[in-house]
Amino acid sequence: MDALIEQLKNIVGPNGVLTGDDVASRSENWPPMGGCRARAIIRPADTEEVSAVLRACHEQDQAVVTHGGVTGLVGGAMTSPDDIVVSLERMHGMDPVDTVNRTITVEAGVPLQKVQEVAEAAGLLFPLDFGARGSAQIGGAISTNAGGNSVIRYGMTREQLLGIEAVLADGTVISSMKDVIKNNTGYDLKQLFVGSEGTLGIVTRAVLRLRPAPRSRNTALVAVDSFDDLGRFLRSMDSALGGTLSAFEVMWSDFYGLVIDDGEKHGRPLDTTHAYYVLLESTGGHQESDMARFESALQEAFEEGLAADAVIAQSRQQRADLWAIRDDIERLVEALYPPVVFDVSLGIPQMEDYVTEVSGALKERWPQSRMVTFGHLGDGNIHLVITVGSMDEQDTRGVEEIVYGALGKRGGIISAEHGIGLQKRAYLTHSRSGEEIELMRTLKKALDPRNILNPGKIF
Amino acid sequence: MDALIEQLKNIVGPNGVLTGDDVASRSENWPPMGGCRARAIIRPADTEEVSAVLRACHEQDQAVVTHGGVTGLVGGAMTSPDDIVVSLERMHGMDPVDTVNRTITVEAGVPLQKVQEVAEAAGLLFPLDFGARGSAQIGGAISTNAGGNSVIRYGMTREQLLGIEAVLADGTVISSMKDVIKNNTGYDLKQLFVGSEGTLGIVTRAVLRLRPAPRSRNTALVAVDSFDDLGRFLRSMDSALGGTLSAFEVMWSDFYGLVIDDGEKHGRPLDTTHAYYVLLESTGGHQESDMARFESALQEAFEEGLAADAVIAQSRQQRADLWAIRDDIERLVEALYPPVVFDVSLGIPQMEDYVTEVSGALKERWPQSRMVTFGHLGDGNIHLVITVGSMDEQDTRGVEEIVYGALGKRGGIISAEHGIGLQKRAYLTHSRSGEEIELMRTLKKALDPRNILNPGKIF
Repeated sequence: MDALIEQLKNIVGPNGVLTGDDVASRSENWPPMGGCRARAIIRPADTEEVSAVLRACHEQDQAVVTHGGVTGLVGGAMTSPDDIVVSLERMHGMDPVDTVNRTITVEAGVPLQKVQEVAEAAGLLFPLDFGARGSAQIGGAISTNAGGNSVIRYGMTREQLLGIEAVLADGTVISSMKDVIKNNTGYDLKQLFVGSEGTLGIVTRAVLRLRPAPRSRNTALVAVDSFDDLGRFLRSMDSALGGTLSAFEVMWSDFYGLVIDDGEKHGRPLDTTHAYYVLLESTGGHQESDMARFESALQEAFEEGLAADAVIAQSRQQRADLWAIRDDIERLVEALYPPVVFDVSLGIPQMEDYVTEVSGALKERWPQSRMVTFGHLGDGNIHLVITVGSMDEQDTRGVEEIVYGALGKRGGIISAEHGIGLQKRAYLTHSRSGEEIELMRTLKKALDPRNILNPGKIF
Repeated sequence: MDALIEQLKNIVGPNGVLTGDDVASRSENWPPMGGCRARAIIRPADTEEVSAVLRACHEQDQAVVTHGGVTGLVGGAMTSPDDIVVSLERMHGMDPVDTVNRTITVEAGVPLQKVQEVAEAAGLLFPLDFGARGSAQIGGAISTNAGGNSVIRYGMTREQLLGIEAVLADGTVISSMKDVIKNNTGYDLKQLFVGSEGTLGIVTRAVLRLRPAPRSRNTALVAVDSFDDLGRFLRSMDSALGGTLSAFEVMWSDFYGLVIDDGEKHGRPLDTTHAYYVLLESTGGHQESDMARFESALQEAFEEGLAADAVIAQSRQQRADLWAIRDDIERLVEALYPPVVFDVSLGIPQMEDYVTEVSGALKERWPQSRMVTFGHLGDGNIHLVITVGSMDEQDTRGVEEIVYGALGKRGGIISAEHGIGLQKRAYLTHSRSGEEIELMRTLKKALDPRNILNPGKIF
C-alpha cells in the first residue's frame, strides 16, 4: 500500500500528495459529515499526471474517489479508509475567453464563480449558477450535471458543454475538446461523463459555451389562487415573453406565509391570503421594449384571471428584496428543524395531487409534522422541506419512503438536480427500472471493469 | 435462413413481413441509390414485437438494419443482401398532447410533420424542422440527432427529447419514458441512442418536449462587408435580441450572386456587391415590442458600422421571398453540376481562413472548379457545394480529402448534422481521435456484443 503512495508521489511530486491530518481535516460532503477518511489525497497538476495516477491505481485495483469542490449534497464524494482521493484543485488553468466563438476552455478544477467572472469581464455570460458557486468546480458540476437558477432559460450543465477531456479508469485520455455546437460524428462520448458522478472517468478539461450577457431584467412577485391557474400562468408567460422567461419560482402559501410571517424582515409585498406566489423574471436585450412586453404579458394574465395580485420591482433593490424572500432558506430550516430536504421532479399535471398525498400521509403518521413546498415550476422541479420533529434515523427513512413512494408511482424523479451518490442509492429503483440499472452496470463494467472509480456510488 | 423469416412472421404476422419485389422497390437512402437489398423487411406493430424480433435475430447472429423514413444522406440505412430490415412504419401511434406539461408521447414511426401539426393544433411548437419533415420519422431523427432550421434557438433533436424507449440487441426493452426536464438519477441512458445511427439499439417510443408557439416573427436580409463584421454582427444581434434570435443564415457572395443572378426569379432585394448576406430572424411573444426591439437592434448594427445595407420584410409574402433566396438549393445544384455537398462545423474564428484554403486548393488542382458557401453561422455550421465538373469517383475522393483535410487540422467536424453512416466512415479520423473511436467500439461491444445492429456503419 505504501509502495503505491510512493509511486504516486513520484508522479505528482511530494507537494502533490497529502496524508494524515492534511486529509482528515478536509471535508468531503456538504453539509460536512466528518473529515475525509481516505488514505491519501493526490493532487495532479495536469492531465498527464491524472492519467499516470489512474494507470498506477488501475494496475493495483486501487479505488479512487475524485474530489472537486466537495459541495455535493448526496455523499457522492465520500471515502472509506482504503480509498485514494484524486483532487483536481491544482488544475485551475483557463484559456482566455474566445469572444468570437463565445467559448472558454478550462481545466476541471476551476471554481464555477471564476468562470462566471471571466465571462462577465469579456461581456458574456456563463449561465450555470447555484449557491455553491464559490467552491464548486467545473469538473464537479459536469460530473453531477448540476442545475441551479438558470435551467428554465439555459438548461443544465449538460447544455453548457461543447467539448470535454476525461481520463478513463485505465489512464486512457479521451480528448473531445471541440468548440462547436453541432457534431454528429459518431457517439457523443462526452455524455458519458456528464452526471455519472465520477464512476466512468475523471473529467480533466472542458470547452464551455458562453452566451450574450442580458441587458435588461424585469422581475415581479405574482399571487395566484389555484394550481390550475398556476400552470396556465406559466404557459401564458412563457408564450407572451417569447422565450425570455428566466425564472418562474413558485412558493406554496406555506412557504410564503412562513417567510413573511410578521413582515419585519421582508415586509409584506403581497398579503398572505393566496395559494401560490410566483417570482417571475425575464431577461432580454433592450430595456425599454422588454419592460413593455413584460408589463403587457402581466396585464394579459390579469385579464385572463390567472394572476390575483402582483408587484413589479421598480429598482435593483426591490428586485433583490423579492429574491430574498425566495432565498430565505435559513428561516425555513429554522422553523422546520430538524429538516429533511427533497429535490424531486414530476410532470406538472401530477404535482398538486402529489403534494396533497405526501402531506396527508405525513400528518397521518406524525400529526406534529410540517411540510413546506417551493421550487422551479418551469422545470417541473420542486423542493419539499419536511420536519417530523425528530432526527431519528427510522423517522427519516419513513419520511423518505412516503416522499419517494408517492413519487415512484407517478413516474417522478427522486433527484432532479442533486444526483444519487450514496444517500439516494437505496431509492434509485423508485425512478429507474431494473433494465435501466442493469444497463448502467453494463456501461460501468465496460468502462471500468475493475470497479476502481468511485465504487459503490449511484448503484 | 428461411426458418428465421418464418419465425419472424409468427411474431409480426404475415402482413408484417415483406420480401422479394416489395423489398427491392423500396429506397434506402436519399437521394435514392437503387432499391433495398435486404432479405426481408419486418414491420413490427409494437415494442413487444420489436423485442421479440431482435431476440430471434440475436440468437441467430442476424444483422438488422433499422428503417425510419430513410431520408438520411450518408448511407446509414443501406443494406446488404444478408440483412434484415426492421421498419418502424406501423408504429405511428401518438398520445394526445399534454398541454399542461407541454409534452407529447409518440411511437418512433411517426413522421416529423405529424408531430409538428399536432403540436400546432394544440397551440404549441415542436421546433425540430428540416426539409424531409414529411417522410422522416421521429425515431430516425433521434437516431441521427437531426438538426435543421431551428438549432440556433432550440438546439438539435437531443435537446427536444425528455424520455425514450429503446430495444437493445438482445431484445431487452429499456424504458426511460420520463416527461420531466430534470433527471439526475444515475446515467442518462437516452443519450446512448441519440445520434448513434441505430448501432446501439432500436428507438421505439419517445417523450418529446414542446414549446410555446411564437406569436411574432421579424425577418431581414442584411449585407455585411467583412468576415470580422459578420462575427461581430452575430454577437451584436444575439445580445440585442435577448435570446430571441431564431435564424442567422449566412450566404457568401458567391451564393447570393449566383441565386440572384439576373434578378428575374428573386428580384434583387440588395445589390450583389457585398461580401456576405445574412438572413436574420427573431421570434417572440409580442408583435409590437418585438418589432421595436428588432428595428432598434438593426439600427445599432448600422451605427456600429457592422451592417452595410438591409431590407426588413414588411409582410408574410416578403418574408417568404427572402427565405426563397436562402432555400434555392435547386438553382445552386443546377449551376454547380455535378455537385459534391459538405456539412461541416468549425469555430467561427477559423472559418474565413478555412474557406479560403479550401477554395484555393480546389482551384489549384481543378482550375475549372467552383465552390459556393452558405450556412447556419450561429451554429458554427457551414455547407460547401463544390463542383469540379466530373462525377469521377477519384475526383470526388480528391475533393473530400481537401475539404476534410483542411478541417481536421483546425479541429473541425466532418459532419455537423448528417451523421457518418457509410459515406463518411473513411474520414471519421479527421474529427475523432483513435482513443475516441476505441471507446465507441467499447460501447458497441458492451451493448451489442454480436454486432447485429446496423453493422459496419460509423466505424
